[in-house]
Amino acid sequence: MTSTGRRNATIEETSTFTPRFNEAGLLPVVTQEVGTGRVLMVAWANREAIDLTLSTGEAHYWSRSRGELWHKGATSGHTQKVRRVLTDCDQDTLIYEVEQKGAACHTGRETCFYREVTQDGRLSAAKSS
Amino acid sequence: MTSTGRRNATIEETSTFTPRFNEAGLLPVVTQEVGTGRVLMVAWANREAIDLTLSTGEAHYWSRSRGELWHKGATSGHTQKVRRVLTDCDQDTLIYEVEQKGAACHTGRETCFYREVTQDGRLSAAKSS
Repeated sequence: MTSTGRRNATIEETSTFTPRFNEAGLLPVVTQEVGTGRVLMVAWANREAIDLTLSTGEAHYWSRSRGELWHKGATSGHTQKVRRVLTDCDQDTLIYEVEQKGAACHTGRETCFYREVTQDGRLSAAKSS
Repeated sequence: MTSTGRRNATIEETSTFTPRFNEAGLLPVVTQEVGTGRVLMVAWANREAIDLTLSTGEAHYWSRSRGELWHKGATSGHTQKVRRVLTDCDQDTLIYEVEQKGAACHTGRETCFYREVTQDGRLSAAKSS
């Protein structure tokens, strides 16, 4: 851990945003609701999606299934007003802190994380924590 | 969105846990602190790491940098007691809800998300939200 810390000191302590994308030019984004702290969804972003999120204040992602830039809610109306963008220590993951309009999940649920994994490998409805 | 919903109805509504891994056999895990709802870190897990997490109640991941199973805190003592595991709609992302012992971040900070991305592409210390 210490050697990793030394090697990546710049990434971890710099005040310059230098996002580290995977081989597909993407990084994961955790979308968290302001106020409740609920995790609503996890999606992916490329550089353009991040830049548009920062400049417009509305959440943008990269849709891997459609292979295109995704302005969340552009068709459904379920937009996300981004209050803050956070990065992690090695700058390969982001958090969008958002105010969600309508449902975050395409199933119509408020959050994509509506099921709990039990020890016996089953899923059950997640109670609010 | 609707067509996707129909195509993946089974994944989204089934009560059988059928995690969908990427081509490297991994999926992202959001580690969230019980009580505060803080996102502490985002890491990766393979099937073995998930199974060990469920069976031991301690967070296990796959370390991509070291290429090995990672029992978080095994060397640092900064273990994570897992209270609940959640999956998202299409079962390609998990949340570990944990009680964190010590620091989650290898930099010694409580969370890996200690910096905010500003509109001008700079990073600044994130205030607690």
